Amino acid sequence: MHALVYTGIQELVYREEKNPKIINGESIVKVSASGICGSDMHAYHGNDNRRIPPLILGHEISGTIDKGKFAGKKVILNPLITCGKCDYCTIGKEHLCGKRIILGMNKPIERQGGFAEYVSIPDHNIYELPKTLDIKEAPIAEPTAVALHAVELGEKEIFKDFKNIKALIIGGGAIGLLSGLILSKVKKCKEVTIVDPNEKRLGECSKYLDAKAVMPDSKSIINDHFDIVFDTVGLEITRQQAIKAIKPGGIIIHIGLTQPSGSFDFRKATLQEITFIGTYCYTNKDFEKTLKILSDKKLGELNWIEYRELKDGSSAFKQIHNGSCAAPKIILLI
Amino acid sequence: MHALVYTGIQELVYREEKNPKIINGESIVKVSASGICGSDMHAYHGNDNRRIPPLILGHEISGTIDKGKFAGKKVILNPLITCGKCDYCTIGKEHLCGKRIILGMNKPIERQGGFAEYVSIPDHNIYELPKTLDIKEAPIAEPTAVALHAVELGEKEIFKDFKNIKALIIGGGAIGLLSGLILSKVKKCKEVTIVDPNEKRLGECSKYLDAKAVMPDSKSIINDHFDIVFDTVGLEITRQQAIKAIKPGGIIIHIGLTQPSGSFDFRKATLQEITFIGTYCYTNKDFEKTLKILSDKKLGELNWIEYRELKDGSSAFKQIHNGSCAAPKIILLI
Repeated sequence: MHALVYTGIQELVYREEKNPKIINGESIVKVSASGICGSDMHAYHGNDNRRIPPLILGHEISGTIDKGKFAGKKVILNPLITCGKCDYCTIGKEHLCGKRIILGMNKPIERQGGFAEYVSIPDHNIYELPKTLDIKEAPIAEPTAVALHAVELGEKEIFKDFKNIKALIIGGGAIGLLSGLILSKVKKCKEVTIVDPNEKRLGECSKYLDAKAVMPDSKSIINDHFDIVFDTVGLEITRQQAIKAIKPGGIIIHIGLTQPSGSFDFRKATLQEITFIGTYCYTNKDFEKTLKILSDKKLGELNWIEYRELKDGSSAFKQIHNGSCAAPKIILLI
Repeated sequence: MHALVYTGIQELVYREEKNPKIINGESIVKVSASGICGSDMHAYHGNDNRRIPPLILGHEISGTIDKGKFAGKKVILNPLITCGKCDYCTIGKEHLCGKRIILGMNKPIERQGGFAEYVSIPDHNIYELPKTLDIKEAPIAEPTAVALHAVELGEKEIFKDFKNIKALIIGGGAIGLLSGLILSKVKKCKEVTIVDPNEKRLGECSKYLDAKAVMPDSKSIINDHFDIVFDTVGLEITRQQAIKAIKPGGIIIHIGLTQPSGSFDFRKATLQEITFIGTYCYTNKDFEKTLKILSDKKLGELNWIEYRELKDGSSAFKQIHNGSCAAPKIILLI
């Protein structure tokens, strides 16, 4: 099969690879569309010790079952593979399973990803494509589930009416925009601010999201002002912006992970009783809720997604890397 | 009046000071007992920009009303003075009030503390001493309220039966021991571990608390093992121990504030969905619940408290500073 293979830092090669083999309880999916995630970018920059070259990246995947019990069905994949038996899995917190693996990773266990013609996946990670959802757009379900999970972790913590909160989203990438769309269109939050240093990105976000879209030095980012801050970037500097902007008793939801450590103002976190929540992926239930949100067209038009051919994947990664692409999401079509 | 005055870094002088004056809505309390808190120690070390010498420290106070509407009554003081009108105060989160001040602080507003013969206090911060509680021991109510608030913030977050959690407490001072006693005796938690580098302290804690009491390098502090970690110290190194020891999906409750900033493992916090909660003081309701717990003798004997005369306060601070005092709490008697 053809595949886009991550072969070294900032190096992707479109080449022939062996087809995946079917095993019991799994299916082979002929991939239609596969989105580029921020975590694929971290791997591309050599910053992810779970993704070591050579490896086929990609875990936001739609397609058609080629081999397996649902052969012929159009599907969306939940790429988070969990044991189904541990304490976390049995209480519906599958995303915390100690044995979890995700498509497009090879440490500690190899699972080739979706930037290829075919991919293998356990049957219980397969969801039927909702009729109202275009198979090209469908990979957006995965980052939407990440954003929904993050928003609902915040919603659970907030001690006031969620509609009336002041929310700040740091980062205008897919997770930032999707978090904003969920806050605004699903949760009906009235005061959303989104911040990004890339003006092109802010312009794109503004077209689709009813929010103040501002640069990081904007006067709109008032200290001690926001009930909730979503850090979808995860740099030391964005965490510092989050802790400055948050109100006493407020919630910081930490979704991005660009810089894994760094200094933080624990004084304010303590004296102002800030709750800082790390968030990772989504539960199976979140994934199902996401498909319903998308099939009901709750997030509006998804015209902010751009598409490229798989064979042009290397240049798509380069465009994201150098900031020349304004789109919050690029999906590769196979 | 006689008072113990903080006059400079590691310098306390027992000397004559002016008596406080009564104002409308307030009372003057003749102090009986006044506890030394970790935050008084931070001030003593010059590490608290809210407590600038010269200042009478002390905010854990019992006594008798000398002047005011309840003259003659034996009382315990809630030292956290709040506006009573803001959004936080009106929803019962008085501890987050933007105008809050605490006895024994002078920045931004001066309120002399309880290491003196007399102290002034608003009437609504005064609680009648429960009959079963000794006026000497009564200042313990304040740190007990801090511990109760912290434990209950954790209890609210935990997604399993609180009795069956594995809890780690970092620090065997008053807040550590009180958090342990509340977990064990009030919340009926079965698996509590307390860690402190001071063997004398561990010995004291072991006498009163049904917990594993261990040194920081103990093999009992297993990585990814504890459902909840209480960091009552707040050093960079204790926060690092907390994030190592916590289980996926677990809760870190950050009560101590020795080092206000420092590096932290945001990678684990994110990928393992850790909730980090800063906690400060207590609500009025927490303070009332605490008086009930203490008057019902729920925490057992309080023989781990040591007593000194106010005039010997300077040497008590020195003993705490150089680690020669094993007692988790010293109360000064006036």
